[in-house]
Amino acid sequence: MVSVEVAWARVLGNPVSVDAWVPTLDPREVEAAGNPVLPLVSALRAEVSGPVHTGLTSQDVLDSALMLLAREVLTRVSADLERVAVALARLADEHRASVMAGRTLTQFAVPITFGLKAARWLVGVLDALDELDVVSRNLPVQCGGAAGTLARVESDPVAAASAFADHLGLVWPGMPWHTYRAPVTRLGDAVVRVCDALGVMAADLLTLGRPEIGEVREGAVAGRGGSSTMPHKRNPVLSVLVNSAALQAPQLGAQLHLCSARAVDERPDGAWHAEWPALRSLLELAVVAASQAAELVEGLEVHADVMARRAAEAAGELLAERGGGTDPATYLGAAEVFVDDVLKRWESR
Amino acid sequence: MVSVEVAWARVLGNPVSVDAWVPTLDPREVEAAGNPVLPLVSALRAEVSGPVHTGLTSQDVLDSALMLLAREVLTRVSADLERVAVALARLADEHRASVMAGRTLTQFAVPITFGLKAARWLVGVLDALDELDVVSRNLPVQCGGAAGTLARVESDPVAAASAFADHLGLVWPGMPWHTYRAPVTRLGDAVVRVCDALGVMAADLLTLGRPEIGEVREGAVAGRGGSSTMPHKRNPVLSVLVNSAALQAPQLGAQLHLCSARAVDERPDGAWHAEWPALRSLLELAVVAASQAAELVEGLEVHADVMARRAAEAAGELLAERGGGTDPATYLGAAEVFVDDVLKRWESR
Amino acid sequence: MVSVEVAWARVLGNPVSVDAWVPTLDPREVEAAGNPVLPLVSALRAEVSGPVHTGLTSQDVLDSALMLLAREVLTRVSADLERVAVALARLADEHRASVMAGRTLTQFAVPITFGLKAARWLVGVLDALDELDVVSRNLPVQCGGAAGTLARVESDPVAAASAFADHLGLVWPGMPWHTYRAPVTRLGDAVVRVCDALGVMAADLLTLGRPEIGEVREGAVAGRGGSSTMPHKRNPVLSVLVNSAALQAPQLGAQLHLCSARAVDERPDGAWHAEWPALRSLLELAVVAASQAAELVEGLEVHADVMARRAAEAAGELLAERGGGTDPATYLGAAEVFVDDVLKRWESR
Amino acid sequence: MVSVEVAWARVLGNPVSVDAWVPTLDPREVEAAGNPVLPLVSALRAEVSGPVHTGLTSQDVLDSALMLLAREVLTRVSADLERVAVALARLADEHRASVMAGRTLTQFAVPITFGLKAARWLVGVLDALDELDVVSRNLPVQCGGAAGTLARVESDPVAAASAFADHLGLVWPGMPWHTYRAPVTRLGDAVVRVCDALGVMAADLLTLGRPEIGEVREGAVAGRGGSSTMPHKRNPVLSVLVNSAALQAPQLGAQLHLCSARAVDERPDGAWHAEWPALRSLLELAVVAASQAAELVEGLEVHADVMARRAAEAAGELLAERGGGTDPATYLGAAEVFVDDVLKRWESR
Repeated sequence: MVSVEVAWARVLGNPVSVDAWVPTLDPREVEAAGNPVLPLVSALRAEVSGPVHTGLTSQDVLDSALMLLAREVLTRVSADLERVAVALARLADEHRASVMAGRTLTQFAVPITFGLKAARWLVGVLDALDELDVVSRNLPVQCGGAAGTLARVESDPVAAASAFADHLGLVWPGMPWHTYRAPVTRLGDAVVRVCDALGVMAADLLTLGRPEIGEVREGAVAGRGGSSTMPHKRNPVLSVLVNSAALQAPQLGAQLHLCSARAVDERPDGAWHAEWPALRSLLELAVVAASQAAELVEGLEVHADVMARRAAEAAGELLAERGGGTDPATYLGAAEVFVDDVLKRWESR
Repeated sequence: MVSVEVAWARVLGNPVSVDAWVPTLDPREVEAAGNPVLPLVSALRAEVSGPVHTGLTSQDVLDSALMLLAREVLTRVSADLERVAVALARLADEHRASVMAGRTLTQFAVPITFGLKAARWLVGVLDALDELDVVSRNLPVQCGGAAGTLARVESDPVAAASAFADHLGLVWPGMPWHTYRAPVTRLGDAVVRVCDALGVMAADLLTLGRPEIGEVREGAVAGRGGSSTMPHKRNPVLSVLVNSAALQAPQLGAQLHLCSARAVDERPDGAWHAEWPALRSLLELAVVAASQAAELVEGLEVHADVMARRAAEAAGELLAERGGGTDPATYLGAAEVFVDDVLKRWESR
Repeated sequence: MVSVEVAWARVLGNPVSVDAWVPTLDPREVEAAGNPVLPLVSALRAEVSGPVHTGLTSQDVLDSALMLLAREVLTRVSADLERVAVALARLADEHRASVMAGRTLTQFAVPITFGLKAARWLVGVLDALDELDVVSRNLPVQCGGAAGTLARVESDPVAAASAFADHLGLVWPGMPWHTYRAPVTRLGDAVVRVCDALGVMAADLLTLGRPEIGEVREGAVAGRGGSSTMPHKRNPVLSVLVNSAALQAPQLGAQLHLCSARAVDERPDGAWHAEWPALRSLLELAVVAASQAAELVEGLEVHADVMARRAAEAAGELLAERGGGTDPATYLGAAEVFVDDVLKRWESR
Repeated sequence: MVSVEVAWARVLGNPVSVDAWVPTLDPREVEAAGNPVLPLVSALRAEVSGPVHTGLTSQDVLDSALMLLAREVLTRVSADLERVAVALARLADEHRASVMAGRTLTQFAVPITFGLKAARWLVGVLDALDELDVVSRNLPVQCGGAAGTLARVESDPVAAASAFADHLGLVWPGMPWHTYRAPVTRLGDAVVRVCDALGVMAADLLTLGRPEIGEVREGAVAGRGGSSTMPHKRNPVLSVLVNSAALQAPQLGAQLHLCSARAVDERPDGAWHAEWPALRSLLELAVVAASQAAELVEGLEVHADVMARRAAEAAGELLAERGGGTDPATYLGAAEVFVDDVLKRWESR
């Protein structure tokens, strides 16, 4: 928020510099104002001379600050998703011929390869990366003043808004979005989709890593996955936490949509305030889940021998659709074509 | 679903024709199979000769059928959103100089125009139209067979999937998406965003149409908005119903994301089944809400005189930010610029 | 709704009898009125003579009708939960000594018994039964007239409301609840809790029934669980559908709470309309899930031999907490005590 | 969590005393373990001698600690709800004859009194108080050990669990609830119901406090409700924040139910971890909203004169149901009876 106020001060011609300044706000004043901007502006005015904040409303500051925060988060999430993609592409390639049982509605179906499975997860990650990229490049500055008309900006208001965006490295969308919240829901939906893509992978790994199945295992790291009572145990902590994030993200995304649908008047009477915690929680979830997913996939132990043995043992069931046979590797359809296509997409990025 | 089976039969070289055929399925058989495809295929096989369904799984049929349904829904929703956009553009233009009180956190802020308000709603509708367009043009066919390998398709499986898509006018995304559900969540999120955009407009109209405010009113239509007990009453039924839809859509969208995050194995054990009712309800909501919104905006009575009178009476408050004055029309900032920009975007579509 | 109107007509002294009457309502009139009551009343007035509906508002009729519907649903759900409880009590008792691996965070922990597992599911079902019982006995009639004052009821309005409740077998809560929706959220929460209790059982059974684990299996029923392509397959359809219901119920319950929090004015402007589909879907889910769960548990195949074999093989891990040993049956703690306590509770009901 | 470990140490016969001890945990170790208990136990063992934690699992500690936290929260929420109830009872009594326009679907309906409105809000608060009371008195201790059998507790495990509960002032429910989460969803649902009850009141006050309506106003407090740009403005900050809380609570409650439905195995693989942030956020929301609601209602300015004037002016509409008249006070039905009944309930508490 300080960065936002500084950028606007510069638009106002005030070459303010408060780089190391970290204001201390009184929570009671924050509550009394309904948001932290008013106390912040008071503190800032006590700190610097010249015009600050004039022409903005508190929502301009908070919304723009949230977009700065989002930008930082998306950069970190994308970097970790790249790591996930690198690791998945490697797994897809290495295991393009690692035959395993396909499972549908929990039961054996027809054979697949672990490479195909990795390629499918990779599609989700690549699409998520593409979406984050679009969202990142379009994060908007908020700039509307008291009721979205920029009436108190004395010079050309649209030029001021545009300069404001440039200072912050955000996009001026041509109009304030105090009550038009698609910039927030698009961000939210993209982040939920990240969690969906990572979550389904984590859920699959939790199943495949059950001791009775044993086809994968989280990499061993000293001190991780320990139990407070069972010394032998190695819990799949990363998968558990990523799975947990994926169970939480959908409701947080719904919260943002609800706030969007209730963004009434020129600035709303509660729906805006209800956005902050959901958006903050959602961004936190994504940062943490992407980092954990990267570590998870990079360290994954794949037991192709167990997969092969099981597929061979279950050949009767896995090949029943075809009418029989003993070698599941002869009934893989387009599995390898699909793997190749996904890897080509990844390489041509 | 019949259309989907017919298209696939043609891919299999079976020139089946069952145009007027409407199968009757036994709900107990549907439950026993877990979905309606198995009973449908039995009925179809009793009806026609030659190969049908071979190589597909039930999810291929149901997912593709849902996409056909979605296409039809999106076409209808887009047509009604176009009507909304036409009407809003007209209102934005006609009322570019209709001064009214801006309201934030329910209280008077600074002046705006009703044209600006209409333009803001229009931005939401235009963005929604753009998103529906992208989603519509990318609705994917589902084609993967038992576990997403198309193993039972005897000829070139990828060519078959591609031909299948062509028959149905859907897109072959290069790979099955049995467990990668972004095609569904993207569709869902776009539809929720439609409801958000219409909902915030309806919520605003409900406030502005309160008798104490009286700045707008739903158009009078014989027999609409009546009360079962109060003969004089004219309820803003369309706004109420659109508002109601917007309160429902977010949770339905969340449902789709949750299902996406739980789409485990090669075909999931419940998450897929939980998608259908949510998607169907969401599509229904959007069709109805868009139609009601079109009628609502087309028939809207705007009382610019009431707006002007109130703004004049509240001038002391509305102009306090500037330091005083008596004519709210002199403190409108960039309101007209914003209206012009949105109208330009609309016209250049 | 007809039953509700008839009951009220009797309160008004009109001995109307329309037992076999099923009105046909025009959907366009329903939409025009915003709800089906106004067209229904018109149809009813054309059908019978004497006073009908006078003094009620449409919400009185719809809310009361939903409570009648809920009563019927709760009766059916409770009956099926009783079947589930009977079957689980039998399993808990029969398998009180069936040792199996305990699993936490998907990995082997310490030994448990299948009887304990069944007893834990039973606790959820017993609590759900108790809650449904409380809710069922308190389902309220809605009776408030246009704005919750019963102003148009000429005789003693409270006596009339009370008589109305008696006619319908509902409870008069002492005051209308047009905008106080806890009667709906309590009903909804209890039903969601039913789905939670059944869902966690279904999810466990899906895991235990995976072919690699094989400790349980859904009972074989001719024609059930078939695949549209793999003739050998026996899908755990009942578990899948119950699991699917449990993934849907939470958002539907949230919808009811949101409507409760937005039940503004004397009768709300959309929040009430948004309740109906959520409540209807939730009740449907519960009826179907309870019936499927009953069939599921009654027919469940329990492979205690597989459980025992696995526990013996994994004894090293299962007994590591204790420091070693070879017989998991010697490290069951209070498992049997817990089983006995739950069975005692069930028997003393 | 320290209190929980201390209580258990005492059950183990270790008279440990660490009253002022506040451990510092390394977040990386917390992540590595998947939860904070393992690092806490290590720190505790370095701090004290004698047995600690033996026989418990991390979920025992965290769940019990959350219940202690919930107890404290419920006590504070109940105290603030009592303040709300006192203030509402006063308003209901004082304004039993303050006639105002009843509003349904945003339009004038028939007359009511502000006392009736206050009494309706009071019903919600009284029911919420009753529910919190039941929940508070039944908050359970968690005590199950590694897989819910208490196998490692050497003495009588049930007696130990019971003593554990006594030390903490919690209830021993007879069985661990690692995977049976109704204790959490009941707590959550009751808290959501608190937010619903306060939220609908806040939403009504926001409407009635609009400048065009002006029938109520939040009390003036120096420094509260200021705008960062408009010096004259007095925003209804408390209502806005309570409204905001009510828009958030439903999804958080849904999160808890979803976790309950996914609480698989003997301890779940992510669903438990997804509970903590939702429960913590929900408890925070309730504490803050109840405190704000108390201040809101205690300081509320009621403009009975404005209500009376509007009702008189709108008499034609408000009395149309009856067929006419000029004095809305003559058409109040059972309004006063309802007020009396609610006040009687409140007084006899």
